[in-house]
Formats: sequence, C-alpha cells, structure tokens
Amino acid sequence: MLEAGAPRSDALVESAFPMTGGMWRIGVTGPPGAGKSTLVDTLVRELSEGGSRVAVLAVDPSSPFTGGALLGDRIRMQAAAARPDVFIRSLASRGALGGIATMVPRALLLLDAAGYEYGIVETVGTGQSEIEVATTTDCTVLVLMPGAGDLVQAFKAGVAEVADVFVVCKSDVDGAKRTVQELRSRLSLDARPTTPVLPVSALRGDGVRELLSELDRFRQDSQRGGRAALRRRGQLIEETNRLLTEHVRVELLTRIGAERIEAAGDDLLARRLSPTELARRLLDERV
Amino acid sequence: MLEAGAPRSDALVESAFPMTGGMWRIGVTGPPGAGKSTLVDTLVRELSEGGSRVAVLAVDPSSPFTGGALLGDRIRMQAAAARPDVFIRSLASRGALGGIATMVPRALLLLDAAGYEYGIVETVGTGQSEIEVATTTDCTVLVLMPGAGDLVQAFKAGVAEVADVFVVCKSDVDGAKRTVQELRSRLSLDARPTTPVLPVSALRGDGVRELLSELDRFRQDSQRGGRAALRRRGQLIEETNRLLTEHVRVELLTRIGAERIEAAGDDLLARRLSPTELARRLLDERV
Repeated sequence: MLEAGAPRSDALVESAFPMTGGMWRIGVTGPPGAGKSTLVDTLVRELSEGGSRVAVLAVDPSSPFTGGALLGDRIRMQAAAARPDVFIRSLASRGALGGIATMVPRALLLLDAAGYEYGIVETVGTGQSEIEVATTTDCTVLVLMPGAGDLVQAFKAGVAEVADVFVVCKSDVDGAKRTVQELRSRLSLDARPTTPVLPVSALRGDGVRELLSELDRFRQDSQRGGRAALRRRGQLIEETNRLLTEHVRVELLTRIGAERIEAAGDDLLARRLSPTELARRLLDERV
Repeated sequence: MLEAGAPRSDALVESAFPMTGGMWRIGVTGPPGAGKSTLVDTLVRELSEGGSRVAVLAVDPSSPFTGGALLGDRIRMQAAAARPDVFIRSLASRGALGGIATMVPRALLLLDAAGYEYGIVETVGTGQSEIEVATTTDCTVLVLMPGAGDLVQAFKAGVAEVADVFVVCKSDVDGAKRTVQELRSRLSLDARPTTPVLPVSALRGDGVRELLSELDRFRQDSQRGGRAALRRRGQLIEETNRLLTEHVRVELLTRIGAERIEAAGDDLLARRLSPTELARRLLDERV
C-alpha cells in the first residue's frame, strides 16, 4: 500500500505509530559495488541467529536494467531471506525522489509496529538523496571499497560526515589495510578519532563479529547518552514539518489551480512576466 | 550575493529576468573521473575561439577535501579561464541540496542577462540531485567512461533517460568502442535510436568537432520543433511552483512558530502524539 501510494496508507502508518519506537534502525550506504548487499546479508544472518527479527529495505534505483539488479540483490540476499523472522524488500527509487525519502521512514514505522527488532535500510550511491535516506535511521554505516577513490568521493559528497561507523569491505584485497589507515587518519584530522573504522570481509566472515559489537556499542552509547533520543526527536520534528509543508502546498495549488499557472506559461517564456511576479500575483489573488 | 544567500539577490534576479532568454544552457554531468572538466575546458575553448562569450558553473560537493578538488578543477580549466569573455565559477553544493538546485538556474539567469551566449553547468555524480541540476538547462550531456560500470549505473540512476547527448570520454582507451556500441544498442532498445553517442578524447582533441556540431544540431532541432520552448516553459512553471510552495511554507512556519513544533518533541518521542496528529492540530489552530 505504501509503495503504491494508496490513500489508506496514511491511516495505516498513523494507526501503527503508537506501537513504534522499539526497532533499532541501521542505514547502510556506500557506492555501487562496495559489497553492501553481502554485508547486509551477513548482518541479517548473524542478528537472526542471535534470535532477533530483522527487516531489510533495499533502496535501488529502478529501471529496466534493474530488473536484473534487483534479482541480483535478491539472490545475494537469499541466504538471509530464507530464514523465518526475516523480511526483505527492494524499493524502487526512480522517479520518486521525495517519494523514497518519505517512504522509507514510513515503511520502517510499519515494520517497527510489526515487531521487527532491527530495521536495516540499504541505499546505493553517495548522492544527497542517499544521505537523506541513510540518516533517517538510528545509526548510519558507510561501506567503502579498498582504494582511495571511494574515500575521496565519500568526503566530497558529505556522506562521510553523517556516518557513525565506517566499514572497509573486501578486507582481504590488496590496499584494504591502507584504506583503513587513511580513513582513520582522516577522521583524526576531522576531530573524530573515536569513530570506528572496521575492515570486513563478508564473504570470508572476517571482521563481522567486530562490526556487530561496534554496532551494539554505538547503540548502547547513544541510548545511554541521550543522543539516540535527540536524533529521533529531530527526525519526528522534521517529519511534522514535511507534513505541514506538503499540506499547505497542496492546499495552495488546489486553491489557485494548476491550470492558472500553466496558462501563464507563454508570458513567462516571453519574459513579459517573471516567476516571482507571477507567484506574487497568485498569492495576492488568494485572499 | 546569490551564493551568500543575500536578501537582495532576489531583487537582482528579478530585475535581470526581462533581459534573459538569449543564453543557450548546456548541462554536463556524469560520474567522478569521467573527464567532464577536461571536456568542458575543450568546449569552452572552442566556443570562445568561435567568438562566443561562455560562462561555466561547476557544481562540486564542498568539503575540506574539495579545497583541493576545486583547485584541481580550476587548474584543469585554466586553459579556458585565461581567455577573455569566459567566466568560470565553482559552486559548493554541500549542505544546500535545495540550495544548489535553486541557485544554479538563478545564477544562469544573471549570466544570461550579462550577455553570455553559452552557459555550461558541470555537475559531479549520478544522483537525483545532479539529474535535477543537469535538467534545468536546454541540453543535457552525459559523460561516461569506457567500461560497463558507468553505463549500468547511469541507467539505474535514471540519468541516462534525461540525457540528450552521450559522450564516451577517453575514446583512445581500450574498450571505448565497445562502450559506444553497447550504449547505442541500449538506446535502440529504449526506442531512442537517434540519440547521439559520441566518442571523444578531449586531451587529443578527437571527436570534439563532431560533438560541437551535434550540440548545434540538437539546438537547432529543438528550437525549430518547439521543444526548447516547451522545456523552458516547464522550467519556468516549475520555478513558479517552487516559489509558491516556499512562500506558504515560510508563512505557515512563521505563523505557527518553530518553537511550538519543537515543544512537542517529547510527546512525539514518547508516541503520545504522531507527526500527522501534531500537524493536524497546528493547522487547525492556524485559523
């Protein structure tokens, strides 16, 4: 219902809300090919073997090509998906930027109410929209491949700044150690020397236990210190602002009528009227 | 003034608007390292040698690292920048997603009014925000490196769909021919067999003339067929909608007061109140 944008989905999320708050939400992001799906698969297996119910939302840009890619994700994740108490779903992101950024937190609320103890959101890429999705969680994990390219790009795009835990995947590959060191010294320079940087080989299973205990430590620290509550509070206020803005936007456009704006298109094009002046007139008429 | 978000910048853009419309705006986008800057440098040199005034806006995610990257861009672009009648500026994008997406079209309006005949916007990355920026122009050029990775990613992210012209850079590299062929057959499958795909080696100068004439042909075709006007019309209506939404958003938040929403944070966190319910109450009180 959420994915289809069904009107009833609002009521659904609304009725689920009082039952939420128990789930710990982890965002896993990073450039394509960094090994996120394999890592998520491993995390899900470990958490699930530990007795937890785990839900995964994989946000993948959709396209005819992605038929294959989604299938690929599913195959990579099948070890996890075959388990009971594990829920996995790929969400298509294309054509719905605002869509996916608002849909993920809402989908997490439903899964939260359904009793999943962990919600993992996997996003592909290192753009602003991916950052947005990754930060609507309680903990953001940034997965990088060995090599300087990803590193530079992650800091350039601003993703590195919102990451709580860094994972250098494919730790068995040449250069992985160096990437870990570079990342650590870079974080020290940024006055974040305690931010964990973990080499992991999901395929071999190396470093997975260490990652799990770092994730657990982060959770305990932020829950004890009140940072988790602060972050959630901010997210809920943000969501309220979004709902308010969306409401007045729809209200205004309904009152004005999209066709009134469309009708002024030729005047805009001919520079007889500017968008600012048109907006001003439409707002004045509103009263 | 625009970059600093000075209040007077609105009036500046507004007064410039009647003088705009003469500039042809080209968006150049693609993944990092694809060779966009070198290509833009070459385009600027050619257009400028042909007697045109050219302005370039390079949108680069900002960060301490990017101090270097921006400098890098400037060095790469210095051949172009040294020319009279060429304007080059790097805009920082970080922390201002809406910011950059709204700033670029406004900056282009100012440069348009200042008499630049070509405005080139270079954006790094293949995320949704980059697509947005790249499509606020008259023509979108997607630059890819030889190899299948970029190609798959470009189609997955939806950038390929908004591209008017494809450039495979570093055409002297192994695999470039194959990438061009794969791209062409992919576009045929998508019923876009006439979309130009051009191998270019900006460093050697191979394919640059062909690219320039394709860009020119695209311009003539879309101006003659009315597509250019339709696209600009849509952009101006889009800008009007944005201004309207922004106005009512600010109006509402001022009326309600951010502290009223902040004050409800604990109730949200404790699930005594949902964002939807809070929004509803605040909207009701408004009247």
